[in-house]
Amino acid sequence: MSSDHRLYAYLHEEFLPLDSAYLHISDLAIQRGYGIFDFFKTHRGLPLFLDDYLNRFYASALFMDLEVPISEEELRETITRLIQMNGLSASGVKMILTGGYSENGYNPGPPNLIITEQPLTLPTEAQLATGIKIITHEYVRELAAAKTINYSMGIRLIQQVKAKEADDVLYHQHGVVSEFPRSNFFIVREDNTLVTPAHEILRGVTRKNVLELAARKYKVEEGTVTLDDIARAKEAFMTSTTKRILPIVSVDGKPVGTGKPGEVSLDLLQDLIELEEAQMKP
Amino acid sequence: MSSDHRLYAYLHEEFLPLDSAYLHISDLAIQRGYGIFDFFKTHRGLPLFLDDYLNRFYASALFMDLEVPISEEELRETITRLIQMNGLSASGVKMILTGGYSENGYNPGPPNLIITEQPLTLPTEAQLATGIKIITHEYVRELAAAKTINYSMGIRLIQQVKAKEADDVLYHQHGVVSEFPRSNFFIVREDNTLVTPAHEILRGVTRKNVLELAARKYKVEEGTVTLDDIARAKEAFMTSTTKRILPIVSVDGKPVGTGKPGEVSLDLLQDLIELEEAQMKP
Repeated sequence: MSSDHRLYAYLHEEFLPLDSAYLHISDLAIQRGYGIFDFFKTHRGLPLFLDDYLNRFYASALFMDLEVPISEEELRETITRLIQMNGLSASGVKMILTGGYSENGYNPGPPNLIITEQPLTLPTEAQLATGIKIITHEYVRELAAAKTINYSMGIRLIQQVKAKEADDVLYHQHGVVSEFPRSNFFIVREDNTLVTPAHEILRGVTRKNVLELAARKYKVEEGTVTLDDIARAKEAFMTSTTKRILPIVSVDGKPVGTGKPGEVSLDLLQDLIELEEAQMKP
Repeated sequence: MSSDHRLYAYLHEEFLPLDSAYLHISDLAIQRGYGIFDFFKTHRGLPLFLDDYLNRFYASALFMDLEVPISEEELRETITRLIQMNGLSASGVKMILTGGYSENGYNPGPPNLIITEQPLTLPTEAQLATGIKIITHEYVRELAAAKTINYSMGIRLIQQVKAKEADDVLYHQHGVVSEFPRSNFFIVREDNTLVTPAHEILRGVTRKNVLELAARKYKVEEGTVTLDDIARAKEAFMTSTTKRILPIVSVDGKPVGTGKPGEVSLDLLQDLIELEEAQMKP
């Protein structure tokens, strides 16, 4: 993150070069992994679906008993100002709210708010054309309703994902699927019904948008998806802010459907891109 | 932590005033709560049971795929030097190893090692005389074998513990007890057998010492402890580096045994204090 000298960040209620953005080690994120965050993208300097992301940010903060140190109006102004200062045409903006500087290394202090912006990396054409391979792992994210900064399991599994020549890892419990470390999961059944897990997940903004778009053309279910359901599915894909819709062609070494990105997945991706474009019209 | 200007810390391979110890916000502890730590105490400038704590620190690092950036010999020298610089007669020394500065906010970089030292706060005579009250909460710490920095649940429960006028919260799953956020748990049965949970726990150094001391005089079991077992127990206590043995007199509002600190608990505390004293003899 410290490679681009021109980027600014927001911390301790001021704008400063990203390279100069430091937290004292007494911060409860460093001491106890305590914090929440959210992440949205911008196109041509405009935030996409900002209300949804801010709603979730405030909900996560409330869930973890953390108070955002500035008003929502100030937060929106700060985001706008940061985007202007950095002048990126497409970016990802991350807001982190930590447990603050702790007197005793355990009890929270006044939360620290960090806002950073980075150039956006979307999936490449090649990734979309070939799709991705995933493995599965038995795990349920704790406090799944909140977007906490705890990614201990996901990061610990990076090596395992690599070793299996996969691109990501899907969590399940006793065969009931929930989500990826940073993305939601969908399958398309033989009858073109889309199904996505309803429980023990983070409610993704892209997931919500895809559900709404899909409901115009297909049958849609929020419910239970098992590993057996995947084995019988015609298509599978993941959704996230940076990945949009990314087709999954293999799970634990077994092909999904034909083993190629599916029609419904790619059709919905076009709809999503159009929805994003429409957001930026005045 | 930033109130005492005389204290030194170790970070980025140098000693510096604790007040000046900052991490860049790209550190994976801040971005993703990724890191491990350990904590030991010193009496009269000497670390107690240092080998045990270092062994656990290295085991946690290995478990989370984090490499300690200096050799074990250098780490021991660094600890000795820091203790000399700070000149505290009784202290707690904390070593944190984070996922390092991450290029993309997800993949680990070379780990950052932080070592801090603070004056030690042991339980007061009053706390020992009255014992403490606890509540219970259904939860199992993830990656329980490693001392990760993830205390999301424990810290989120601080308000709930306070609201119930309790001092700490004991985790259980379907009534099977594991541990406190920062301490181990023991009961003493009517027949003077000590029992402590064997699974889904962090293997405390004080827990180990208490098990060894207790085995000289009492029957001892590492196994399963249920909430029902606590209801039938004569005594209960918690163990940790800073708390040593702290008697528990009430669980979820119900008294343990007579509702007063028990004989066996206080007897073992004396043995533990003697063991600590013996450690400091040449």
